[in-house]
Amino acid sequence: MYIDKRGVTFPIGFKANGEHVGLKKVNKDMSIIYSEKQATYAGFFTTNQVKAAPVLFNQQRFKEHSKIHGILVNSGQANACTGKQGDEDCMALAKACAKELGCTYEEVLVASTGVIGVHIPMEKAIPGVEKVVLGLEQGEKADAKAARGILTTDTCIKQKALEIVLSGGKKVRIGGMAKGSGMIHPNMATMLSFITTDAKVSQTTLYTMMDEIVKETYNMISVDGDTSTNDMVLALANGASGCEIKPFTKDYETFKEALKSLNTKLAKSIVGDGEGAGKLVEVKVSEANTSSEAKAIAKAITTSNLVKTALFGEDPNWGRILCAVGYAGVDIDTTGVSIAMGNPVSSTTVFQHGKPYEYEENDLRELLKSEELSIKVKLGSGEESATAWGCDLSYDYVRINGEYRS
Amino acid sequence: MYIDKRGVTFPIGFKANGEHVGLKKVNKDMSIIYSEKQATYAGFFTTNQVKAAPVLFNQQRFKEHSKIHGILVNSGQANACTGKQGDEDCMALAKACAKELGCTYEEVLVASTGVIGVHIPMEKAIPGVEKVVLGLEQGEKADAKAARGILTTDTCIKQKALEIVLSGGKKVRIGGMAKGSGMIHPNMATMLSFITTDAKVSQTTLYTMMDEIVKETYNMISVDGDTSTNDMVLALANGASGCEIKPFTKDYETFKEALKSLNTKLAKSIVGDGEGAGKLVEVKVSEANTSSEAKAIAKAITTSNLVKTALFGEDPNWGRILCAVGYAGVDIDTTGVSIAMGNPVSSTTVFQHGKPYEYEENDLRELLKSEELSIKVKLGSGEESATAWGCDLSYDYVRINGEYRS
Repeated sequence: MYIDKRGVTFPIGFKANGEHVGLKKVNKDMSIIYSEKQATYAGFFTTNQVKAAPVLFNQQRFKEHSKIHGILVNSGQANACTGKQGDEDCMALAKACAKELGCTYEEVLVASTGVIGVHIPMEKAIPGVEKVVLGLEQGEKADAKAARGILTTDTCIKQKALEIVLSGGKKVRIGGMAKGSGMIHPNMATMLSFITTDAKVSQTTLYTMMDEIVKETYNMISVDGDTSTNDMVLALANGASGCEIKPFTKDYETFKEALKSLNTKLAKSIVGDGEGAGKLVEVKVSEANTSSEAKAIAKAITTSNLVKTALFGEDPNWGRILCAVGYAGVDIDTTGVSIAMGNPVSSTTVFQHGKPYEYEENDLRELLKSEELSIKVKLGSGEESATAWGCDLSYDYVRINGEYRS
Repeated sequence: MYIDKRGVTFPIGFKANGEHVGLKKVNKDMSIIYSEKQATYAGFFTTNQVKAAPVLFNQQRFKEHSKIHGILVNSGQANACTGKQGDEDCMALAKACAKELGCTYEEVLVASTGVIGVHIPMEKAIPGVEKVVLGLEQGEKADAKAARGILTTDTCIKQKALEIVLSGGKKVRIGGMAKGSGMIHPNMATMLSFITTDAKVSQTTLYTMMDEIVKETYNMISVDGDTSTNDMVLALANGASGCEIKPFTKDYETFKEALKSLNTKLAKSIVGDGEGAGKLVEVKVSEANTSSEAKAIAKAITTSNLVKTALFGEDPNWGRILCAVGYAGVDIDTTGVSIAMGNPVSSTTVFQHGKPYEYEENDLRELLKSEELSIKVKLGSGEESATAWGCDLSYDYVRINGEYRS
């Protein structure tokens, strides 16, 4: 059901493009996603108190409008901490884009990623808008161009697309593209994700669905614990497939499951985009009293520098995991705690019911050589669980973040 | 008023020692502090839900007794996650120590630091207790031996001692020794600190004073954000100087100020104990509405990996600082925020009243070459402030924590 090498224009009625317009020295730096029909949309934004201008701009649109035509994204400048000028630049870009698309500026959302505290060079950006709109296309090439234009220091494009069959044999498509900091990326650690679907979904339904999904995917990944000023997830549904997704139906569940799967893959691709040395780790916490307690513990483990460096060193140093369990702010009974480590295929118990558990050190070290690692923590107190994704902490992280801007 | 090369036996009536008894392959691994007179004491323990056996042991004593004679510390094994056996080992060590000292086991506190999940080899530890007690002495050599016996991967001993003059020319001494993880130390990231004074201080007064001091010193340092299972601060007052410190007196303020100064120095020495490349950073947040808000922001900055790697790279990347201010969980008005960076001697404004502020990049980079760095954040909303201390994140951190145990 997943389609290789496809992204945001896989669903019917979407076009996209990405171009170099001069906001960065090299590489594409402006992308657009366009729906011919008006699309309902849902937006999710950074919880950082310092919000970039495009975040504030879109939040304002979200209050006023329920349908849009397009999303304009620039990379190079984050347009954060740019004061009144930043707000005016957002408006000017949305207006220029609306003019080219033949819609109103309220039907255009904007997003930025790049260096904080720097203005977008508008003398290049405004002509750039014309260029990206002119090149709007549908297909594999357009997907890739759009996915590339939103990157900063990412090492690869991140996109996914799938088709599902609903009741009565009707088909619906979902596409998506994202950019994110992997383990290696500095204060433009921004995470952006844009989802398209040709299903017909009301704004309320789309929001409700995505709200739950965002909490279990993007909010459960951690690269370095820093929340960006520009983080944003936008989902668009244009109804071009003719299939409507209504609550309390089997199709709703099928669609939601597919939407969650695609967003999980995009979220994991963000964490996994370290350099060659990077390891992706999935932390599953189960037998918790509440889901939020399971989440808190899973995130404490993925954000612990001591755990992250141990994973880099392929060292089954479970004491550090237990330590993170202990300071996650959740009441636990250590005599109920068990821990297993390994990779997605095989894992080994290292701590059981509050006590160290005998294991074969060399066998476990072998498992930890995998690029994808797994940590499973059972709390032994309830029935709720949560999964979080993180990465190791490597020399490259320090190098790239230490040398950034120099 | 500070005395070089002195520590816990500088105050009158305290003896100490540190020996190698075989708990580690090499280096001293058992220390003792002994007060001839019974001493009042105050104890502060890890907030980690997973508490090592000695933490639980001392907390129990704290409920029952207000005076003690000694503290026995071993390094090598943390005696954490060691179940019932761990509790029994604590008791056996306290009893063995009490027997040698000629007091009751309730008058002995214990502390451990080292690898989690490993039992203390009691067949070596028990004879070791006799050895350390036999070598109890007073003076420069004893200070250093005791300070050395509590280290794990620390690169240097950490001790301070001072003498103050109270009203009427009376003199009181304070000494202290600590161990801590610097930026380089793994799951034995334990922080231990032991304070001695020959002032006469009631348990209530000592506790009240130290409670406030611990919050502003040890609780404001961050190496990697991980709270150990064994963290502990113990303060002993034996009254041997004959000077009593009573609340609501000038002497109280003088003594408290000296006690805070000594603890601040010990706390900073823990953060500063990185390898050669390490940088110590002091983050001062002012103009906050409440002191706890100022603390939350200061700690968010010292624990941000993006800020830490920028400091390692000597890069004035203030966007990362602002970003941490934004996600610290405090309501802020960004238009009031100003940021300055530099070293303790000189600093440069980089962000003022919510806007980027022009500065000479090369001059600032020059300042950031210092080993001690300074970040000052003004929130522009209130009158409260807080200071936190942290360190950079270097290749060595990754190397040592990645290779630990291998």
